[in-house]
Amino acid sequence: MSKFDKYFLMSPSDAAEYAAEKLSIFCCDCELDSKEIGDGNLNYVFRVWDKNSDKSVIIKQAGFTARISEDFKLSPDRNRIEAETLRFQGDLAPGLVPVVYKYDDTLSCCSMEDLSDYTIMRQALLQHKIFPKFAEHITTFMVNTLLLTSDVFLNHQEKKSLVKSYTNPELCEITEDLVYTEPFNDYKHRNDVFLPNLDWVKKELYNDNELKLEVAKLKFDFLTNAQALIHGDLHTGSIFVNENSTKIIDPEFAFYGPMGYDVGNIIANMIFAWVNADATMDNEEECINFKNWVENTICEIIDKFKAKFMKVWKEEAKEVLAKTPGFSQWYLSQVIHDTAAVAGLELCRRIVGMAHVKDITSIENESARLRAERICITVAKGYIKNRESYLFGEQFVNTLKEVEYEFPR
Amino acid sequence: MSKFDKYFLMSPSDAAEYAAEKLSIFCCDCELDSKEIGDGNLNYVFRVWDKNSDKSVIIKQAGFTARISEDFKLSPDRNRIEAETLRFQGDLAPGLVPVVYKYDDTLSCCSMEDLSDYTIMRQALLQHKIFPKFAEHITTFMVNTLLLTSDVFLNHQEKKSLVKSYTNPELCEITEDLVYTEPFNDYKHRNDVFLPNLDWVKKELYNDNELKLEVAKLKFDFLTNAQALIHGDLHTGSIFVNENSTKIIDPEFAFYGPMGYDVGNIIANMIFAWVNADATMDNEEECINFKNWVENTICEIIDKFKAKFMKVWKEEAKEVLAKTPGFSQWYLSQVIHDTAAVAGLELCRRIVGMAHVKDITSIENESARLRAERICITVAKGYIKNRESYLFGEQFVNTLKEVEYEFPR
Repeated sequence: MSKFDKYFLMSPSDAAEYAAEKLSIFCCDCELDSKEIGDGNLNYVFRVWDKNSDKSVIIKQAGFTARISEDFKLSPDRNRIEAETLRFQGDLAPGLVPVVYKYDDTLSCCSMEDLSDYTIMRQALLQHKIFPKFAEHITTFMVNTLLLTSDVFLNHQEKKSLVKSYTNPELCEITEDLVYTEPFNDYKHRNDVFLPNLDWVKKELYNDNELKLEVAKLKFDFLTNAQALIHGDLHTGSIFVNENSTKIIDPEFAFYGPMGYDVGNIIANMIFAWVNADATMDNEEECINFKNWVENTICEIIDKFKAKFMKVWKEEAKEVLAKTPGFSQWYLSQVIHDTAAVAGLELCRRIVGMAHVKDITSIENESARLRAERICITVAKGYIKNRESYLFGEQFVNTLKEVEYEFPR
Repeated sequence: MSKFDKYFLMSPSDAAEYAAEKLSIFCCDCELDSKEIGDGNLNYVFRVWDKNSDKSVIIKQAGFTARISEDFKLSPDRNRIEAETLRFQGDLAPGLVPVVYKYDDTLSCCSMEDLSDYTIMRQALLQHKIFPKFAEHITTFMVNTLLLTSDVFLNHQEKKSLVKSYTNPELCEITEDLVYTEPFNDYKHRNDVFLPNLDWVKKELYNDNELKLEVAKLKFDFLTNAQALIHGDLHTGSIFVNENSTKIIDPEFAFYGPMGYDVGNIIANMIFAWVNADATMDNEEECINFKNWVENTICEIIDKFKAKFMKVWKEEAKEVLAKTPGFSQWYLSQVIHDTAAVAGLELCRRIVGMAHVKDITSIENESARLRAERICITVAKGYIKNRESYLFGEQFVNTLKEVEYEFPR
């Protein structure tokens, strides 16, 4: 018998004991210390390290309620989905996700590679650091994890069993509400709009019927389109970076959904970094340099994604109709249209919904924040309404720059 | 212990014994007789009746291989899917499916209402009988079973668990191959083309790249679009009729797929009845009357489907965005476009694929059959390529009549 034979919510010292007993990482002469370092809404994250060596491990445990509220009940099955997704993505995109050492079904915890020498990308972008290899890495990650889990590549029976295994009803519902519904009607009365923008938001989001019709169509695509195993929460807070390497973490929202959901989230969060720099950087040259890097990165993400997608399709596609003339081009163009739409949704929901991003909330100057938010939402509406005209990276950036001039400082 | 405690393939006398032991249908003084009456490719169907009363039952059993070939291995889980679907559809569309008495997981058999006083609709249509209430019944069935199993009506978490439960990989693969692939490339070399039409079929189907591109798009919709719990094999051989009543049977292909798949199959099979009459009926007035009834029925099926769909949507939709202005109209128009496309696919695959329909194969006159097949395939290509222009029942019929004149007798 071991204390870890049945579920309980671990303390930091439990996590250290767990690591010593269950993981074969540390030597017998180790001296373990442990700390809870989680800052998300849902889970507990323990870092366990040996004071006598450089060995360490991350243990992420899911509770039966969310970390932020006892009232928010949530199945710990999300931890299984996260662990299985990390392993699957690690096979498909080697080196781009942390290594999983063990998934423990009893404790709903996943032990994985410690990435403490990396920085969370959002924090780094808020310091206006640039990552020249990011577009290269993230596009490899997305093309491999998306295209190679789709019916283009997988045997269709095998794919159907993956769809079952990655069914993720509770976390999908969070997205269905927070991304696809509430930003456009506040029907749960929990939007959190920056007060000076409230009337403008009502007019631009809650009262734009053309926009709401497009959002309804997109919501049903998210509800029904089992296209690929998507990460499901691919913002810059789910990415660890350093100068040479990128690691994508936290795929607990993973399920079979539309590919554009991942690509669009990345684009939107790059735009948040851009508006933050635009609103807060005093040194004009540095500001222009950073914004240029973001713009180039947005272009590169779209265009490298497309180029790699076509290459992998050509080399790896197994579906017999995949080689039909014109089909891969058509399929990819749909993904890019979806990307534009989802980028728009993410831009809206982070501005007006309950889950903000620091890129926006850290803008202290009121009129600068007001302008930054309006730029984001105006870009968003263009992306959503005109999504079928987006095909190239440059178009995504051009919309941003056009909208920038609509809102003079 | 009972002999029915573990799986074996029943004989007719086993089925009678099973009915006596496991079902509470017959009295103790009954005298049971039994016969295997199945004529499908996959399963065994026993009719068990009491010689001393009017009581009877149908017992449908699935083997671990298909009835037609020991080499064709197939999970008997299809019997569970069929039984659960019949029960679910019976709740959603009362009176339009046979009553299920018992599903037996051990023997993979389903005991249900005996409909021997009904006729299989395809056989009745081959005798050129008309069923004035059919459009009314089938549209109620389709609207209720499709719309009420979709995200428009169901709680999205509940719907996701239904998607899992109705995952049907093996039977979907049959459709993916026979409907969405082989008719357009014969890549498994098992198409069975009427020889006098072979060159024409090669030109019109195998060598039409524009058509093949549209088919590839449609195949991926079938592979990914978990829209509603569809019947999955809704042709006139899956429908029992009499003058006043309609019963839809055999939903073993059921899974979460595109709504238009069911509606399109019905339309295509009505067209088969039309071309059969056109090719074989000697009495001109009777022929015109029958064809008129089919044409009106096609119109009614589309238009009543649309009217009932809008009514049920208005009364029953639970999804918060369902009332978004214009959304229900847009959603329904997509279903009708899909209907046109699927009608086209079904028309093609029954003409050139391995699973024919008697409406075509029973046309004895060679030039009449040749013409009938060309009418079907030409209509089909219009439905597939121009699917986005189809919105009203009349348009479906107009295409048929236009094509009829392209091929003078």
